[in-house]
Amino acid sequence: MTKGRTRHHQPGVGTVEIKSFSFDSLLLESGERLGPVTLVYETYGSLNQEKSNAILISHALSGDAHVAGVHEGRNNPGWWDSMVGPGKALDTTKYFVVCSNVLGGCKGSTGPSSINPATGKPYALDFPLITIGDMVHCQKRLIDHLGIEKLLSVVGGSMGGMQVLSWLVRYPSKIRSAIPVATAARHTPQQIAFNEVGRQAIMADPDWHAGNYYDRTPPDRGLAVARMIGHITYMSDASMTEKFGRQKQVAAKPHKFTPDFEVEGYLHYRGNTFVRRFDANSYLYVTKAMDNFDVSGGNSLQKALYGVKTKVLVVAFESDWLYPEHQSKEIVKACKLAGVETTFCRVHSNYGHDAFLLEVNEQSHLISHFLKKVFNGYEVTDNYAV
Amino acid sequence: MTKGRTRHHQPGVGTVEIKSFSFDSLLLESGERLGPVTLVYETYGSLNQEKSNAILISHALSGDAHVAGVHEGRNNPGWWDSMVGPGKALDTTKYFVVCSNVLGGCKGSTGPSSINPATGKPYALDFPLITIGDMVHCQKRLIDHLGIEKLLSVVGGSMGGMQVLSWLVRYPSKIRSAIPVATAARHTPQQIAFNEVGRQAIMADPDWHAGNYYDRTPPDRGLAVARMIGHITYMSDASMTEKFGRQKQVAAKPHKFTPDFEVEGYLHYRGNTFVRRFDANSYLYVTKAMDNFDVSGGNSLQKALYGVKTKVLVVAFESDWLYPEHQSKEIVKACKLAGVETTFCRVHSNYGHDAFLLEVNEQSHLISHFLKKVFNGYEVTDNYAV
Repeated sequence: MTKGRTRHHQPGVGTVEIKSFSFDSLLLESGERLGPVTLVYETYGSLNQEKSNAILISHALSGDAHVAGVHEGRNNPGWWDSMVGPGKALDTTKYFVVCSNVLGGCKGSTGPSSINPATGKPYALDFPLITIGDMVHCQKRLIDHLGIEKLLSVVGGSMGGMQVLSWLVRYPSKIRSAIPVATAARHTPQQIAFNEVGRQAIMADPDWHAGNYYDRTPPDRGLAVARMIGHITYMSDASMTEKFGRQKQVAAKPHKFTPDFEVEGYLHYRGNTFVRRFDANSYLYVTKAMDNFDVSGGNSLQKALYGVKTKVLVVAFESDWLYPEHQSKEIVKACKLAGVETTFCRVHSNYGHDAFLLEVNEQSHLISHFLKKVFNGYEVTDNYAV
Repeated sequence: MTKGRTRHHQPGVGTVEIKSFSFDSLLLESGERLGPVTLVYETYGSLNQEKSNAILISHALSGDAHVAGVHEGRNNPGWWDSMVGPGKALDTTKYFVVCSNVLGGCKGSTGPSSINPATGKPYALDFPLITIGDMVHCQKRLIDHLGIEKLLSVVGGSMGGMQVLSWLVRYPSKIRSAIPVATAARHTPQQIAFNEVGRQAIMADPDWHAGNYYDRTPPDRGLAVARMIGHITYMSDASMTEKFGRQKQVAAKPHKFTPDFEVEGYLHYRGNTFVRRFDANSYLYVTKAMDNFDVSGGNSLQKALYGVKTKVLVVAFESDWLYPEHQSKEIVKACKLAGVETTFCRVHSNYGHDAFLLEVNEQSHLISHFLKKVFNGYEVTDNYAV
């Protein structure tokens, strides 16, 4: 997230609470069993009596359950505060919005830094490999727990979009619509490669200690390098040029290779702040889940989508080279070939992949109109669950 | 270099020798003085009596003086063996080809791993910051030493292309032609960012020891990560997909995050072989020289080129996203605006930046025809130096 988050500022959802939901056991797609499982989540707006206005947001790699508003006594607006709130794209005066931290994460939900009940210590690498599907199965449990039989929509960008696609093939009857944003049905080797280099940077850090660092210094240097690589891929050549050019920063130079270009200083700042809020093992598990993700299960996405009644809005951004437009179009094509009602929009932007967090204006219009149509269509033509 | 190096195989230059040339002192562009300076170089073909057939090749970041042929008793073809030899693009039956390892490098020329005469130990970070211009000034000394008053051409790809451009503005009267390939007049913030993350990976490795590792374990893990990042940028999304797809490799898995995709295995292999042949401090110095490079010196390239009589051939490759075509076109535009005779060609390729090493066929035709024209023009119309 580089700038523009506060554009079109409107009153937000105010102070919000962190909630949590636990269940005893989850059968993972690998066949392993994990438990107990806790999901941390937040909600915004109110569930209507028909329970027909619930929208699930799925977050990206470094996101969390805190989408909008602030926590008591803090000034920490959520990661999509520009899009979720009264009068915003996901209008909390109309909709009940839910977001949970993913399985495998480190913002309260069960992950490698959680206590392994078998040992009383953090799981570390004893945590099982998880999948995007596993994340979605957990979300389904949460939605059941909240008494919602059918979601109005599932929305998410980047890895959030993968979860949206996973909902679409796993639980199509549970979602009236799906909005995958700036995402892919599967990673290309280049996308895998960027993640792998990040993982290697973490594992090359001697402080990683094969994942057993919870009682000592964590592998901050490696994680910072991983995040720096990430940030290059989140921006575009054009947005970097506009933001930094070849400007040099005025800074103390303890040695010759202290960063001097502004772009270098920015990456350092991003890397160094990230390590304070993210767990290196979660980075490994979650990126691996992304790399292993293939929504079609290695078969045809078209076939996996036959008979699906969910309405789909696919959004891509022009300068996003990490999840380029052609990957969104593959999703659209498979949907259309399977007869799924699908709308595609490419939003003009220079922000690169970050655009899904920054291009508030056009994205808001697209999403709010789409949701309104689905919501109204629901009230008028669908007798489900009343 | 991914594949195709042996395409169109033709007999090569055979066994070649490593030569070296030293001089006492060099005034660097920073104002510092460095000495003594040694350049390791190789030559192929013979200098004609008029000394009019000499071509200098400038190498890229990880290249060296060994362009073609093999060393005695070894099977180590040079990095551009496909382009340099009898009947090849740089035809050694016609031309005398020279290549030297760059200043700051680690393949024999003076660099941070060389002995600092002031201390009797390797320079490490006491080595001064060097520039692309400093590299070129050294090459000019070598060319003088070889008795060549005017080069037929200077050719190079990537960082080699930066050296070509540097020759063009610093010594235009000393070169009849210039062939910058897959290069840029200056790095964008994105290009700087990729280099910086590589440098950070090296410096985050505790074995780096602020550069003082020559008598202990070198920072191999950090350097391998840097090289892995590099390799992603050298290939294209398409060439990675073609080469690896989402294939998994069959390999022992000591832990969950041992690489399993083929693309991961490839990057590891590249990273791990690189550390055996490259010095981490040289990686820092040479990438910094690239990032600081701006052929126009921060002013107008067009103005820097007024009056230049050198003929220029600029080559770019379609899928090269590290040095995209628009950067080559900026060079072409500045040349044309300055009245410099310039030809531009974009070669179709899926290989990404690696194309300058792999697209032998079209590149050979382009370069050999261009050189022939310059060479013949010289014989016919120019009375220089006879």
